[in-house]
Amino acid sequence: MPPQANLDEYLARLCGAIDAALDRVLRAAATPAPLGEAMRYAVMAPGKRLRPCLTLAAAETVGVSLGASVETAIALALPAACAVEMIHSYSLVHDDLPAMDNDDMRRGRPTTHRAFGEGLAILAGDGLLTDAFRVLALSPSPAVEVGAPRATAERVAHAVAVLAEAAGSTGMVGGQAIDLASVGRAGPGASPLDGAALEDMHLRKTGALIRAAATTGAILAGGSDEVILAIDTYARDLGLAFQIVDDVLDVEGASPAIGKTAGKDAAAGKPTFPALYGLETSKQMATACIDRARTALERHGLGGRLSQIAEWSLGRTR
Amino acid sequence: MPPQANLDEYLARLCGAIDAALDRVLRAAATPAPLGEAMRYAVMAPGKRLRPCLTLAAAETVGVSLGASVETAIALALPAACAVEMIHSYSLVHDDLPAMDNDDMRRGRPTTHRAFGEGLAILAGDGLLTDAFRVLALSPSPAVEVGAPRATAERVAHAVAVLAEAAGSTGMVGGQAIDLASVGRAGPGASPLDGAALEDMHLRKTGALIRAAATTGAILAGGSDEVILAIDTYARDLGLAFQIVDDVLDVEGASPAIGKTAGKDAAAGKPTFPALYGLETSKQMATACIDRARTALERHGLGGRLSQIAEWSLGRTR
Repeated sequence: MPPQANLDEYLARLCGAIDAALDRVLRAAATPAPLGEAMRYAVMAPGKRLRPCLTLAAAETVGVSLGASVETAIALALPAACAVEMIHSYSLVHDDLPAMDNDDMRRGRPTTHRAFGEGLAILAGDGLLTDAFRVLALSPSPAVEVGAPRATAERVAHAVAVLAEAAGSTGMVGGQAIDLASVGRAGPGASPLDGAALEDMHLRKTGALIRAAATTGAILAGGSDEVILAIDTYARDLGLAFQIVDDVLDVEGASPAIGKTAGKDAAAGKPTFPALYGLETSKQMATACIDRARTALERHGLGGRLSQIAEWSLGRTR
Repeated sequence: MPPQANLDEYLARLCGAIDAALDRVLRAAATPAPLGEAMRYAVMAPGKRLRPCLTLAAAETVGVSLGASVETAIALALPAACAVEMIHSYSLVHDDLPAMDNDDMRRGRPTTHRAFGEGLAILAGDGLLTDAFRVLALSPSPAVEVGAPRATAERVAHAVAVLAEAAGSTGMVGGQAIDLASVGRAGPGASPLDGAALEDMHLRKTGALIRAAATTGAILAGGSDEVILAIDTYARDLGLAFQIVDDVLDVEGASPAIGKTAGKDAAAGKPTFPALYGLETSKQMATACIDRARTALERHGLGGRLSQIAEWSLGRTR
């Protein structure tokens, strides 16, 4: 395994593969022009690509442990990596809408509805969400080059089920509904969250998709049930740590670096980990999550890149 | 084949199976309460259930022709029937939003955003769309009883791809974007449609999902590529006829029977078949579509219920 210092290079390589695949996906579709532009705008915004990088890193870790080449493992998982990023992008477009968080800026640019109008933004989100499942299930997938290796239909169907469950009403969409209710925008009066409810909301709203990102990579790369479960446990704690660090950065971070208005969540009366536990305890909680995440992997000899990503997520500044 | 007079009874039996399956699906999910209520409100509205009936009728026709029992064919296709109706319901919720068609009433009741607020309506649509793919791909599907027969993973993955393609940016969502642009709500100024563009819009906006409804039934019931193509051809013409009849009813129909405001499309400056071709020619076009639809089936000995449904769609009054 290359030293920690090379993690940035590794992630940049994965991001290159993901961006090229997303470009193929968004270019291939016979989509009406304004809709296609809005979808591309939403997906091609500058971003960390954390989720699809996790998909590919998990696939590489699992695939190589089973004797596959890095190239094969990546090709098997690229449809899921694209689907995950398209679903993440759609969720940002819809969350930013006036009826939801009502955000004008995202990643330093106007939000999709500010740039394209509200109707087209709703449709761009719907299109990305639906097309994500096409990219994952269609054979050959538009995410890969012609002739690329292909996971079995069993594994594709399994990945679709896992991704849909994570993104749907019991997962990400459910978490957003809890968030909406917590600030009084889904019925009469706000329902403030305590610590357990806050954790539940985040496990759904951001955690579920992060878990599915990692597990779909493991599934498509041929992982056993036991290995898929270990990756899932890792990603659950990684996702929670990521959210805690986000909340901390929202308090401490400079606005340009995180690409949105610092302190906005707190100002909107949104529950955050620092508001409930204080900054220092929040940081300790994030560290404990990452320790657990790494332990879950190492028990199965799966540390490597995934452990490095976990460690990196603690130290990030944006 | 039972006589034509029994078609109502046949469709009522299919609707019973579909409603029971949708109830299982919407009950099973660990969805936050207000979101679950909004989703149920949207799906359980009184409606024709045309699309999922097509799924089951196609599955029955194809399955029985291959030697399966009616019960087995229906069980194989129920996950797709539910997924199709959930996607249809989500599309109505999002199309009714203020930023889209801005409708207050749907099927004689307040639209979902009027009943639950705009934020929750957007999320209910997102939840239904995403959960549709879970219902289709998860094994066992929450749509069926424990122990029900299950299509192969190959056929499930194929059905997911077909449904996602039909509902996505090149299909239904793309059609809605063209519709939005045609009335000047997706950029500067309206882009009025001519006859060919109107047909293209409808083939995407309503036709694509009707085709996928029928073909996913044929796929899951084990149809050959040739049979799936025949069902697709049938459903394409059926869907177009359905849209023409809708437009005719919008001009001629009484408001209570069709459950929305008669003449609303014309008043909104939306392109319609009667506006372009006149009422009589529109009716002749619908009849020609249905003739083609029945011919496509009968060439493969697949008439029966599907032909009856085609004939019924011409004479309907709501």
